[in-house]
Amino acid sequence: MPLWTIYHTPNVFSGKEKPELANSITDVYVAVGLPRFYVITVFKEIDPDDLYVGGEQAETAVRIVVDHVARTQPDKAARERATRHLGGVLRPYLDRPGLHWEFHVDETSGELWMINGLVPPPMHSEAEREWARTNRSRPYTAAV
Amino acid sequence: MPLWTIYHTPNVFSGKEKPELANSITDVYVAVGLPRFYVITVFKEIDPDDLYVGGEQAETAVRIVVDHVARTQPDKAARERATRHLGGVLRPYLDRPGLHWEFHVDETSGELWMINGLVPPPMHSEAEREWARTNRSRPYTAAV
Amino acid sequence: MPLWTIYHTPNVFSGKEKPELANSITDVYVAVGLPRFYVITVFKEIDPDDLYVGGEQAETAVRIVVDHVARTQPDKAARERATRHLGGVLRPYLDRPGLHWEFHVDETSGELWMINGLVPPPMHSEAEREWARTNRSRPYTAAV
Repeated sequence: MPLWTIYHTPNVFSGKEKPELANSITDVYVAVGLPRFYVITVFKEIDPDDLYVGGEQAETAVRIVVDHVARTQPDKAARERATRHLGGVLRPYLDRPGLHWEFHVDETSGELWMINGLVPPPMHSEAEREWARTNRSRPYTAAV
Repeated sequence: MPLWTIYHTPNVFSGKEKPELANSITDVYVAVGLPRFYVITVFKEIDPDDLYVGGEQAETAVRIVVDHVARTQPDKAARERATRHLGGVLRPYLDRPGLHWEFHVDETSGELWMINGLVPPPMHSEAEREWARTNRSRPYTAAV
Repeated sequence: MPLWTIYHTPNVFSGKEKPELANSITDVYVAVGLPRFYVITVFKEIDPDDLYVGGEQAETAVRIVVDHVARTQPDKAARERATRHLGGVLRPYLDRPGLHWEFHVDETSGELWMINGLVPPPMHSEAEREWARTNRSRPYTAAV
């Protein structure tokens, strides 16, 4: 459900760092009860010719778009807390001399969302807990 | 206006299936009166090294982001109906053993949208009907 | 903060036009006080096999997604004005026979946004002016 699209110039992430970062990102959501498989991370290398920061070709830059579906933050304080938390996950990978990095989060409706042909179970439902426990989707009855 | 961005691992779609799926997607919107050319479908193959589901490298996965501009669903029931309808369009292409697939829809403002340098005509206007009939944009007077 | 993702078929932009357009886009935001480095422009060439307009393979097409974070337009009139303004920036590059082009803008929360590990300073604050003047991020005290 959270989709992380990570645009980056070449040589920012080693082959080992990509799955590490994807795992660190996933852990954030698993900690609040989401099934691991809800979290998708896409890395997209962008040639410096194709990435401009302030109109200048970027040497080393990372721009991340996070889509949060279904679990929106209730207020300003919660949004700011979430932002700092996600920043903390990224910092070990991205706080380096000369690397420009930025992310923002978009929040969209959980009623416009489907996984493996199924409408995902309601937040905090027994079915969601089972999807989390088994780390897979499964048809469920809406009542549970 | 609807933009479908389809991230997929290699070998999910044959060359023939891409235009087929793009056409099936387009038909959904044409059925409710939109000009065909409003519907854009972008396929983006992602190397398994660059696509993680729950922090694990994905063997075979499809993650779709749908941007709906201008025509937002009025309520929860309509959103859920739309979701099931779009899921039904995708299912023949994506319900396969071992393939993980997910989509979500973002809804944005029709007042922040332009095609070929023109502000598209109002929903259900005569100008919109003409754009649909001719399948092309054309300057129009705001009144019609 | 504004992120421009520009999907285009091959041979739409020359190597010279990419930084030119990225600069023209950046100027729009600098004119209203944003630091230049807030503006990110990403060009993504899409093979015609992978880009469909109305279900048909696109010969020459440009589809742009603009993410506006933190500075949302207050009302319909402002949104329409912004749209025409952005269209005017693109027109010199895209109004060509046979080229289909479209953009839309998504507006998201400025409370879900971070640059170089910092929560960006409030709109019109002294710290924001300094970031704009120096064209770089710097820790600041929230009060200024």
